Amino acid sequence: MAEASGLINQGTTCSNHAFITPAKVVQEPAPYLWKVQFEIQSKDTQSSARSGLLHTAHGAVPTPIFMPVGTQGTVKGLGPDLLASDTKAHIVLGNTYHLYLRPGTEIIEMAGGLHSFTTWTGPMLTDSGGFQVYSLEDRRKIREDGVKFQSHIDGSSHLFSPESVMDVQRSIGADVVMAFDECTAYPADQAYAREAMERTHRWLDRCLLRWRETEPKYGFEQALFPIVQGSTFSDLRKESAEFIASKSAWGNAIGGLSVGEPHDEMYAMTAEVCAILPEDRPRYLMGVGTPANVLESIALGVDMFDCVMPTRNGRNGQIFTLEGTINLRNAKWARDFSLLDPQGDSAVDSRFTKAYLHHLFRADEALGRQIASQHNLRFYLALVEQARLRIADGSFRPWKDQLVPQLTRRL
Amino acid sequence: MAEASGLINQGTTCSNHAFITPAKVVQEPAPYLWKVQFEIQSKDTQSSARSGLLHTAHGAVPTPIFMPVGTQGTVKGLGPDLLASDTKAHIVLGNTYHLYLRPGTEIIEMAGGLHSFTTWTGPMLTDSGGFQVYSLEDRRKIREDGVKFQSHIDGSSHLFSPESVMDVQRSIGADVVMAFDECTAYPADQAYAREAMERTHRWLDRCLLRWRETEPKYGFEQALFPIVQGSTFSDLRKESAEFIASKSAWGNAIGGLSVGEPHDEMYAMTAEVCAILPEDRPRYLMGVGTPANVLESIALGVDMFDCVMPTRNGRNGQIFTLEGTINLRNAKWARDFSLLDPQGDSAVDSRFTKAYLHHLFRADEALGRQIASQHNLRFYLALVEQARLRIADGSFRPWKDQLVPQLTRRL
Repeated sequence: MAEASGLINQGTTCSNHAFITPAKVVQEPAPYLWKVQFEIQSKDTQSSARSGLLHTAHGAVPTPIFMPVGTQGTVKGLGPDLLASDTKAHIVLGNTYHLYLRPGTEIIEMAGGLHSFTTWTGPMLTDSGGFQVYSLEDRRKIREDGVKFQSHIDGSSHLFSPESVMDVQRSIGADVVMAFDECTAYPADQAYAREAMERTHRWLDRCLLRWRETEPKYGFEQALFPIVQGSTFSDLRKESAEFIASKSAWGNAIGGLSVGEPHDEMYAMTAEVCAILPEDRPRYLMGVGTPANVLESIALGVDMFDCVMPTRNGRNGQIFTLEGTINLRNAKWARDFSLLDPQGDSAVDSRFTKAYLHHLFRADEALGRQIASQHNLRFYLALVEQARLRIADGSFRPWKDQLVPQLTRRL
Repeated sequence: MAEASGLINQGTTCSNHAFITPAKVVQEPAPYLWKVQFEIQSKDTQSSARSGLLHTAHGAVPTPIFMPVGTQGTVKGLGPDLLASDTKAHIVLGNTYHLYLRPGTEIIEMAGGLHSFTTWTGPMLTDSGGFQVYSLEDRRKIREDGVKFQSHIDGSSHLFSPESVMDVQRSIGADVVMAFDECTAYPADQAYAREAMERTHRWLDRCLLRWRETEPKYGFEQALFPIVQGSTFSDLRKESAEFIASKSAWGNAIGGLSVGEPHDEMYAMTAEVCAILPEDRPRYLMGVGTPANVLESIALGVDMFDCVMPTRNGRNGQIFTLEGTINLRNAKWARDFSLLDPQGDSAVDSRFTKAYLHHLFRADEALGRQIASQHNLRFYLALVEQARLRIADGSFRPWKDQLVPQLTRRL
C-alpha cells in the first residue's frame, strides 16, 4: 500500500520535468444534502405512461430512463466520458454480486465508493445480487437466512443475506440500491412461486430494518427499492405488489420478468403490478428489454429500465435502428457505404459506414464492438428521451404504436 | 449493393422524424496539389538527431515521429477521433498484407481509399506486406517473381510480387508506401543474407518501375520508400544502403532489424546505414521499438518509427512511464489509488487510478485494454514530441542519456 493516498496527484520524484502537466484531481461530488425524490412532470392521457425526474445527490434523472449496465465497474467497452457525452446516459447500473467478488468492498471503500473508483460522477443504481446468485444454479443453496453460493471466479464460498447485501451496497455507495430478493425461474409451479415470493417479502423486512440501522458512507442519501415477485401468477403478483406498496419505499421494482416468459405475459404482469404500486414513486422493470419492450412497458407506467442487450448485442454485431435491427456481420453490408445510422445522433452514426463496421466485425477488431455498443446505448437513450417528449406533448401513444412494428424488423 | 452511394447521408424513408439530425458528411480531404517533401528544421550538435517536417497531402508530420500501427484499418481499440485528439498521432500505419486479404482492394477502392474507409484524415503509411508474408514461414515460398503464400484466414493461395504490391498500395492510397522487400530472419548466414538483399534490390527496381508507370487513384501524390536489408552484416548493410541511396527516393527505410538481434547490433547497423542514406530525406526504422530504442535511434539519425508495442503491451496490462514500466495486473497495484500516470497528459492519465486499471485487467474488461493502449500511444507520441523540442533547443543528448536508464526500469 505504498501510495494509497486517494486520487491526489502525487507529483513526481523524477528529476526530469519534461512531461509534467498541472495536476488534475478527479472531481469529487460536493457533499450533497438533498434526499432522493421523485417528481412526476406529465402523464399521458392515452396510456399509463408518465414522465418525471428522479432527484439524487449526483443529479436528476429524467424518466422514463434506460440505465446502461456496468456489471464490473464499467460499461463494457465504453469509458465514463463517452457514456456521458455521447450516449447521454443519466444513470448507470452496477452489479453487487460482481463488485463484491471483485474488486471487493474493501477496495471500493478505500477508493471512496464506486463513483470515485470508476470516475462516473452521475447517478448510479446497484442491483442486489439476487438475480446473479440464482443464475449460479448448481453453485448456490437458498436458505431462510440467505443464499450460500460459490464464486464463479475461484469457487470460494460466500453467503448473501438481506443484511449483508445491504452492507455491501452501503460500501458501494450507489444512489439507488435494491432489496435482496429471490428471482423465480420461468416456468415455476405456483406453490414454489408463492414460497419464493413470501421469502422475498420476509427478506424485504430484514433489508428495510438493516437499511434504517445503517448510515450512508459517502455523505448522501441512498434510496432502497423493494422488488415485486410472483412469477407469472396474477394473484401472486397482486399480493406481492400490495405488500411492496405498503412499505412506502423511495421507489419500487418489478423483478422476475423477462426470464423466458412470452411478452404478452410479461406485459400483463407489468400492467397488474403498475396498477397497484404507488403512482407517486418511480417504477423500475428489471432486466427489460428490447426497444419494443421498453416502449410497451413505458405505456404501462414503467419509469426505469436496464438491460445488457445494447452492449451484448452490440458486441455481437447487432445494431438497433428506428427501421429495425441490423446484423453487421452479414455479407449484405460489406459494400454498403451508407452511414451507420443516418437517423442516429451518436458521433459514430454519422462518422462510420456500415461497410467499415462490417469489416471491423469480420476482422474481430475491438473498435467494432465499441462503436456498436456506443451506437446501441445512444439508440436506447434517444428512444426514452423521445418517449419523454412525446408523453409531454401528448403524442406518445400513436408514436409508440407506429414505431414498435418497425423496431422489431430485421434489415 | 442496395445503398452503395458513398458516405452521403441518405436521409430517411421513415415517416417518423423524431430522431432526424442534420446530415453530417464525413469530411473528405480537399484535392491537394502538393508533393510529399521533407524539410529538416534543426540538427543536434551532440548526436546525429535531427527534427523536421514531412509534408504530405493530409498534413505535415513533425519528425522524429512514432506511427501507431493500424493493422486492419484500425489501431486496436482506439477510434480515429481519440487517436488524433488525445494521443495526438500525426501519421498511422496500415498493413498491406492484412488489408489486401480483408476487406480487399475492391472494397477499399469503392470507399475511396483507406482514408475514407476508416475516416482517419491525417497522413498514412502502408508497409509492403514483406514482413507479414515472411512471418508465414511454412505457408510461403520465396521465388524470383515474388512470394507465393497462403492466407492465414482461409488458406487461399496468393502471389505478392513487387508489381502487385505497388498496385495494392495504389488502391489503399496511403501517403507513404513501402517497397516490397525480403525481411531476413535473425540469425542468417551471410550467403543467404546476401542473396535476400540482392533479391530485395532487384525487386526495388521493379517496384520503382511500376510506381512510375502508375498513377495515384485519389488525387494526391504517394511517396515510395525503399528498404535497406543486409541482416547484421556490416558490409552488406553498407552495400544495401548505397544501393538504396542511389535511387534518390522520397525517403528511405531500414528493415530487417528488431527481429531478435541484440540491441547493440541493431544500433550499430542503424548507425552505419544512417551515415550512408541521404541526409535530406526522412529515415524510417521499421518495427522499432521500446521507448529506449526509439530515443537511441533518434540519436543515430532516424526520423520515423512504428511498433505494435504500445498497443500490444497495453492490451496485456503493461504501461510505459518516464519512471519505468508498470504491469497493472500485478497485485502491488490493487490498492494504489495514485493516478495512472501523474506525468502523462492523456485524458486517461489524470482521470483513472492504477487500482481501477488493475481491477479492469483482473476482470478482463475491454476498457482496461483501451485505456492502457491510449496511455501508451500518448506516451510514445509525447516522447518523440519531447525529443523534437530537445533537438531544437540543444538539450537532446543529455536528456536522452539520463532518461534511457529510467525508461527501462520495472516498477
